[in-house]
Amino acid sequence: MIKRGSVELDTFRSDSKSNLIGSKQETTSWGKTSPSKSYCSSSSTSTENVVSTLERKKAASFESNAPNRPDDPPLLPGEKVTGQARDVTYLCPYYGPARGVLTVTNYKLYFRSADKDTPNIIDVPLGVVSRIEKVGGASSRGENAYGIEVFCKDMRNLRFAHKQENHSRRDVFEKLQQFAFPLSHKIKLFAFEYSETFLENGWTIYEPIAELKRMGVNNDMWKISRINEQYEICDSYPAVWAIPAQATDEEIKAVAGFRSRGRIPVLSWIHPESQATITRCSQPLVGVSGKRCREDERYIQLIMDANAQSHKMFIMDARPSANAIANKAKGGGYESEDAYQNAELVFLDIHNIHVMRESLRKLKELCYPNIEETKWLSGVESTYWLKHIKCILAGAVRIVDKVENHKTSVLVHCSDGWDRTAQLTALPMLMLDPYYRTMKGFEVLIEKEWLSFGHKFQQRIGHGDDHHSDADRSPVFLQFIDCVWQITQQFPNAFEFNDYFLITILDHLYSCRFGTFLCNSERERVQEKLKEQTISLWSYTNSQLDLYKNPLYWANNNQQRVLIPIASIRHIKLWKAYYCRWNPSMRTQDPVYQRIRELLILKEQLEHTAEECRKEQQSRMARTNVTPA
Amino acid sequence: MIKRGSVELDTFRSDSKSNLIGSKQETTSWGKTSPSKSYCSSSSTSTENVVSTLERKKAASFESNAPNRPDDPPLLPGEKVTGQARDVTYLCPYYGPARGVLTVTNYKLYFRSADKDTPNIIDVPLGVVSRIEKVGGASSRGENAYGIEVFCKDMRNLRFAHKQENHSRRDVFEKLQQFAFPLSHKIKLFAFEYSETFLENGWTIYEPIAELKRMGVNNDMWKISRINEQYEICDSYPAVWAIPAQATDEEIKAVAGFRSRGRIPVLSWIHPESQATITRCSQPLVGVSGKRCREDERYIQLIMDANAQSHKMFIMDARPSANAIANKAKGGGYESEDAYQNAELVFLDIHNIHVMRESLRKLKELCYPNIEETKWLSGVESTYWLKHIKCILAGAVRIVDKVENHKTSVLVHCSDGWDRTAQLTALPMLMLDPYYRTMKGFEVLIEKEWLSFGHKFQQRIGHGDDHHSDADRSPVFLQFIDCVWQITQQFPNAFEFNDYFLITILDHLYSCRFGTFLCNSERERVQEKLKEQTISLWSYTNSQLDLYKNPLYWANNNQQRVLIPIASIRHIKLWKAYYCRWNPSMRTQDPVYQRIRELLILKEQLEHTAEECRKEQQSRMARTNVTPA
Repeated sequence: MIKRGSVELDTFRSDSKSNLIGSKQETTSWGKTSPSKSYCSSSSTSTENVVSTLERKKAASFESNAPNRPDDPPLLPGEKVTGQARDVTYLCPYYGPARGVLTVTNYKLYFRSADKDTPNIIDVPLGVVSRIEKVGGASSRGENAYGIEVFCKDMRNLRFAHKQENHSRRDVFEKLQQFAFPLSHKIKLFAFEYSETFLENGWTIYEPIAELKRMGVNNDMWKISRINEQYEICDSYPAVWAIPAQATDEEIKAVAGFRSRGRIPVLSWIHPESQATITRCSQPLVGVSGKRCREDERYIQLIMDANAQSHKMFIMDARPSANAIANKAKGGGYESEDAYQNAELVFLDIHNIHVMRESLRKLKELCYPNIEETKWLSGVESTYWLKHIKCILAGAVRIVDKVENHKTSVLVHCSDGWDRTAQLTALPMLMLDPYYRTMKGFEVLIEKEWLSFGHKFQQRIGHGDDHHSDADRSPVFLQFIDCVWQITQQFPNAFEFNDYFLITILDHLYSCRFGTFLCNSERERVQEKLKEQTISLWSYTNSQLDLYKNPLYWANNNQQRVLIPIASIRHIKLWKAYYCRWNPSMRTQDPVYQRIRELLILKEQLEHTAEECRKEQQSRMARTNVTPA
Repeated sequence: MIKRGSVELDTFRSDSKSNLIGSKQETTSWGKTSPSKSYCSSSSTSTENVVSTLERKKAASFESNAPNRPDDPPLLPGEKVTGQARDVTYLCPYYGPARGVLTVTNYKLYFRSADKDTPNIIDVPLGVVSRIEKVGGASSRGENAYGIEVFCKDMRNLRFAHKQENHSRRDVFEKLQQFAFPLSHKIKLFAFEYSETFLENGWTIYEPIAELKRMGVNNDMWKISRINEQYEICDSYPAVWAIPAQATDEEIKAVAGFRSRGRIPVLSWIHPESQATITRCSQPLVGVSGKRCREDERYIQLIMDANAQSHKMFIMDARPSANAIANKAKGGGYESEDAYQNAELVFLDIHNIHVMRESLRKLKELCYPNIEETKWLSGVESTYWLKHIKCILAGAVRIVDKVENHKTSVLVHCSDGWDRTAQLTALPMLMLDPYYRTMKGFEVLIEKEWLSFGHKFQQRIGHGDDHHSDADRSPVFLQFIDCVWQITQQFPNAFEFNDYFLITILDHLYSCRFGTFLCNSERERVQEKLKEQTISLWSYTNSQLDLYKNPLYWANNNQQRVLIPIASIRHIKLWKAYYCRWNPSMRTQDPVYQRIRELLILKEQLEHTAEECRKEQQSRMARTNVTPA
């Protein structure tokens, strides 16, 4: 039996090794991109490469059709090669130029260098591409001066050199343009072609009513309303929401008229004990004249009264106060404390989508392709990225403090209530409710606070659209995921998922392989029949949960119902495994996970052994008719 | 049996909790200093405080006599109260002023505030004190303007306010001066008074000949020499060392004449397979005229020849080349490649003790008492501390690369060969040899490369001496420990000890409670009879190994014989748990260790259960005479 046990252990071990990709993060979540060449000569690094090669093979066999010709890339169901060029040179900023074959499919750009042993492979879903430029004209001199540059949404740029004489560039460029920006070329997004089947159906993960019931709604104070079933009250809100039980349909309509884009205050979360709530909305249409709305004031009072524990309420306005004031000129504004009795208004000083976009642009400049060693820390500081992350986290912590420690309800809004507001409801919910820290709970959180409440993913990401400098694009959701990562760093035992799960979500935020992050609102998703015509990202993730499990997760840790991260710049780290992952010299060496996986496996083994012993003993006793002592 | 098991589990659990101090690091290693008040209101933080209070109680009962009067501090065997003042106010930069009793013993300064519930306790061994100043004179106005300021070697300053009218300051100031600087007042260091007994005798940990034998010396190429038994060849070297087997006593004497302070090249480490070595020495006395020494040249050739794998050798000069050249004017210099055939000289560009001292001064300014949030990263960068740490690690990695990957021997020196040289032999040894990564192996490493080879601890730390601005003081050993911590961060599974062990070593580097870090050389230690008259730090640490164990340690990890850390500023972190530990807002929230300890305990439990089952089964079989299947 010991022998058998040890065989099993080996099996587990090799599993645990191939799972290591989950703890490494330098590879992409589609598992085939990271080149197997390595900058570092250390023994442990080369081990990692073996592992990631293994993983890549596994991933390839898992998800793709067998390629027809040796240079063809592995293809997903529904994926087709649309163009191919030979004798292309990938100008790798780390390993130098590599000659090979560049293929364009309706889903991805795929380059494979000719080296037999450690081919340099680039595998980028075209949804990740933000811009494609020709480099060099007919008169270009010098090696590798003539080609294509591809700018990506995931912090990297790729340069390919073509030979002028074989005219390979034109076709590749055209195909890249078409399939990277299908919406600009009247072509369907790949998500509508993709036809893989999964055991799980991710579209069923989030059921709005079930989630409200989990929180105890309906109850005396809150009711589920279907007034928006046809998206007539608010076209960017979901069909089902929860509002104070006493609010009438007429009031709701009046409130919708007084809130930007009809985004009235609705329930995000309710405290299981104190009944203090987090609600969300858009700014009130106060304007320069300081308009008031009796129904809106009464409605806010109903939200306050729904919580018997406190005779006060906080309105957390995510914006800097100057921005909130400036919005009055455009008909918006904020709640005056005169009109809203017992409500205290707080500005959380988080900057708008344009400031955040600019900050990420600077960060990309700093991290890709090469990192200036001497001024690294001050360079990171000067992007303000960590400061913005800190600011969002600090806002979330203030909300948690009010709800948890002061049993006071909080209403959150920014201007439209779909960017900063989503960050400031989802993060406190994650800190307050352990359910959202499980894998499925986190999926529900994204489905509810981001997707159903109308964060404009289409606009912010620009799926399939070639307007790369569109001012509506902004890394709002990326910041949310970064904040989640920061919390996982401060509470490594509190999350069921690891950061490979977060990176996978971000990779498919752009990839357009799944329907999950398409469109701007629930209404649009229903119109586009996404649930029928595309696959959910959660079908994919929930079919391979092991890859995303955090071995440090400690589900029974009762002390940790509420997490309060320290929102100080000294505790905020740059998420190198995401932002710097393309640079081989940024890879970490020796993940803690390895040791813990070993322990978990050993534990399972021992449990098994003990169980076997017990069984054998029982059967022996039965055979020998000995009464147990 | 299940019941019994679960009882044991609880016992283990409470142990594991009280061990948590090892994973927390905010408290000092003497376990009683950190105030139990907390800045943060999070639930997990308050849990930590409970734990550290528990631990403090345990530590107090473990190591101290019961105090006589309620305000008296717990005392160590041999410790005596020498002065006490009431109505003193500790001006805590974090929790505000606290009124209480200040006690001075022959070992420590001890303050306890009058609050019953969470007294603010300050407990600082006087060895940690570098300077004491009176603040405010007879004419001082304003509350708390009159008192004492205590500057410490461990990154903090303490301010106490006395009432002018009760004249308590004079006596306390005098006693502090006397016992913080006993050598300046013809008083013995506390280590000579301290009389605790431990189960282990730490003085026996390091046996030079046993350690050389562990490395396979004597062998064909290397011999153990006792030529320095009376410290006549080199008074800062140990009595026993290993040199090339063919070197004669006459040659040794000639070489000693050509090397600064007689510090000839001797063996630090030998590769178990390739026989490539790391040797250490001081600079050659080349001078401006470019003197040569036939014996020295032949001797270096012998070191090269002792390694059959390579016909080349590296001389790693730790200094910037400009400094090495400047040393010629003072009679020193470096090996010319003309004189030393087949030897390649490399300058590692590590700065001298003065530059390092200044860098740490800036770091202290940045970290204590309060941290400027807005410019934190650029502030850290501007101290250059991390750059210096990187530089030392990068030098060590170059040495490891030559020895491990190129099978080439390396000779290391700086000017005198007792500061940077000790860093550059000890760190590569730690990377190359897993033995030094065990707890006892690390103690041996410190005893060998630092203590026996004459790092001038007395001069660099200034034990018991009031010349606080002495230019000989420098954080050379602190940098070594910081580098070790950096490696543990990159390879969390590779070390038997945790960072609480490292912090404990640093705390007792200053405390003067143990004899370990006293004196400048082995010769002085023998003269002072340290082994007879004082206790070794390792007696203390090895009597409570559990406190220092790294639960992530993976002893059977064969892939990790050699560790090659990435010596890039992007991978070097500020060791906040050491440098910023006095600031309660720098504490981390949720150590990974907790989960792993749980797993380890569960594993032991299950092993135990399986074993019990097996035994019961066997005895039952014996009773029932059933032949095993």
